[in-house]
Amino acid sequence: MVFDQLVVGIDLGGTKISTGLVDSAGVIIAHDYRETRATEGQEAVIERMLDAARLVMAQAGVNQAQVAAVGVVAPGPLDIEAGVVVAPPNLPGWGHVPLKQLIEEGLGIRTFLENDANAAALGEFRFGAGRGTEHMIYVTVSTGIGGGLILDGELYHGANGMAGEIGHTIVMPNGPLCGCGNRGCLEALASGTAITRQARERVARGVLTLIADLAGNDPERITAKLVAEAATRGDVEAQEILAEAMNYLGIGMANLVNLFNPQLIVIGGGLMNIGELLFGPVRRAIARHALPTLAQAVRVVPAELGADVGVLGAAAVAQSAASNSRL
Amino acid sequence: MVFDQLVVGIDLGGTKISTGLVDSAGVIIAHDYRETRATEGQEAVIERMLDAARLVMAQAGVNQAQVAAVGVVAPGPLDIEAGVVVAPPNLPGWGHVPLKQLIEEGLGIRTFLENDANAAALGEFRFGAGRGTEHMIYVTVSTGIGGGLILDGELYHGANGMAGEIGHTIVMPNGPLCGCGNRGCLEALASGTAITRQARERVARGVLTLIADLAGNDPERITAKLVAEAATRGDVEAQEILAEAMNYLGIGMANLVNLFNPQLIVIGGGLMNIGELLFGPVRRAIARHALPTLAQAVRVVPAELGADVGVLGAAAVAQSAASNSRL
Repeated sequence: MVFDQLVVGIDLGGTKISTGLVDSAGVIIAHDYRETRATEGQEAVIERMLDAARLVMAQAGVNQAQVAAVGVVAPGPLDIEAGVVVAPPNLPGWGHVPLKQLIEEGLGIRTFLENDANAAALGEFRFGAGRGTEHMIYVTVSTGIGGGLILDGELYHGANGMAGEIGHTIVMPNGPLCGCGNRGCLEALASGTAITRQARERVARGVLTLIADLAGNDPERITAKLVAEAATRGDVEAQEILAEAMNYLGIGMANLVNLFNPQLIVIGGGLMNIGELLFGPVRRAIARHALPTLAQAVRVVPAELGADVGVLGAAAVAQSAASNSRL
Repeated sequence: MVFDQLVVGIDLGGTKISTGLVDSAGVIIAHDYRETRATEGQEAVIERMLDAARLVMAQAGVNQAQVAAVGVVAPGPLDIEAGVVVAPPNLPGWGHVPLKQLIEEGLGIRTFLENDANAAALGEFRFGAGRGTEHMIYVTVSTGIGGGLILDGELYHGANGMAGEIGHTIVMPNGPLCGCGNRGCLEALASGTAITRQARERVARGVLTLIADLAGNDPERITAKLVAEAATRGDVEAQEILAEAMNYLGIGMANLVNLFNPQLIVIGGGLMNIGELLFGPVRRAIARHALPTLAQAVRVVPAELGADVGVLGAAAVAQSAASNSRL
């Protein structure tokens, strides 16, 4: 069997490792899914990544010489150029780990490392909602807000590989406190965490809202999804919380439109599932706040890769790196 | 005489046309400076541009075959790809003018069009403060705020050639009204116009400030430069106006640092002349509001090209386009 530019994509998370053998069209030919078991230590985790990669190759009947490259998506912080994972919070006990080199040596295939938001951007660009574009911004909205920038058809890294910190752009000086220590970051205004905090504050103040009922009057059970459910059922407080948060998200996106003049903004992450409650206000804010020519040039669409975004993002990183180094 | 990659740069403004024959090191070998006389009409203006270009070539004793390209910086809006000037407000009577084609045909040299902020960015990158960098943001702060983005060593245009609208990123929703119709754009908070407006409001309210004295109690005579002079002489009101405006400028720059992870921010435009009153607050805001790794990676410096930025920007556009099309 002959495959066009096969790659292995490995998505290393704090709880699971997802691994796929992927072809150039983004088809996952073989898939492996296992627990990370981070507590067993760094060597055990890396051995499990290598096992998973060997397994998907064996399942498809290909050997290492038939695989162009391996892409690894790992929790940050990363030193992408050096291929080093730098003490990620969700892999306890890891120090500076030369993950690129260890996978490369373990498999005998050249390996490339990337962070999750950048890999997701590249995955959507090559295999998902961004196909056929040249200028695309990927934004993930879940507990935090992150992003990746595809500019002139390439992932843009910046000077230290850290470009695209969309969640920490400030859209409201003196606004609510963000996890980064600043006030009024997009993440502090429009993330799942921000929505949950708003809802909990209102419930704690005794505001009459369906959110309290749906959470069984337990503030700890309030989530952004639950707020969206209350909003869909007509709860005015929930609608207000979401409208305000998603308007801020839209202002952040309008700023990106004015800076990058993109063709497409792809929104992924858990919060994309609230659908029009997100996309409606975001599209309206862009139409209202971005310069007209730029607002008209951009579409805002949901991500398409779903649960496969990790593996396909990692595969896209491998394919992209393999193509570039072939030039 | 042999020159390495000679180009002609033409800076077409509403009141003057500045033209230079420029070598690959950014040395202006011959220079012409004349009035635009926009009221004489479009054909007369274009003829004056052609005359100026022919003159600088004749002064240096080179013919059209020795000139690699012509760069033209023209007032916006522009359709850069098509090379068309689209009814610029400061060239009254101009409709859609195919300026690239007209200059190209008139001189027999391939010609490239660019807007002023993008050309200035490219000029600083090739010949000025940005030499040796790969990721540089140019910001011009004068009556308005504009910018140009050098990403991975290239001027970034975006989907419609309109990327870099830094002045219209919103950093304070519901803030002061901007000329674009939005509220709280960087331009409405931190431009020379914004500073002047702030100062005039205070003087009109009868606030005791040296600004009023320096302006002879005539609000119309208040300028950003005058506010800076009052601040330097110890006037607390003027210091407050500038500190606030430049803090907003710094927040806008911190957002750019978080998005682009640049090595360098080059600040040009009239307001750069207030020196530390601008650079101090901007550097402090970046240190405070950008993510630490990114804040540490960037320097903020004044533009270096001064009054030659138009001609050298135009020359940089020509050189850049000529190099790219040679590949």
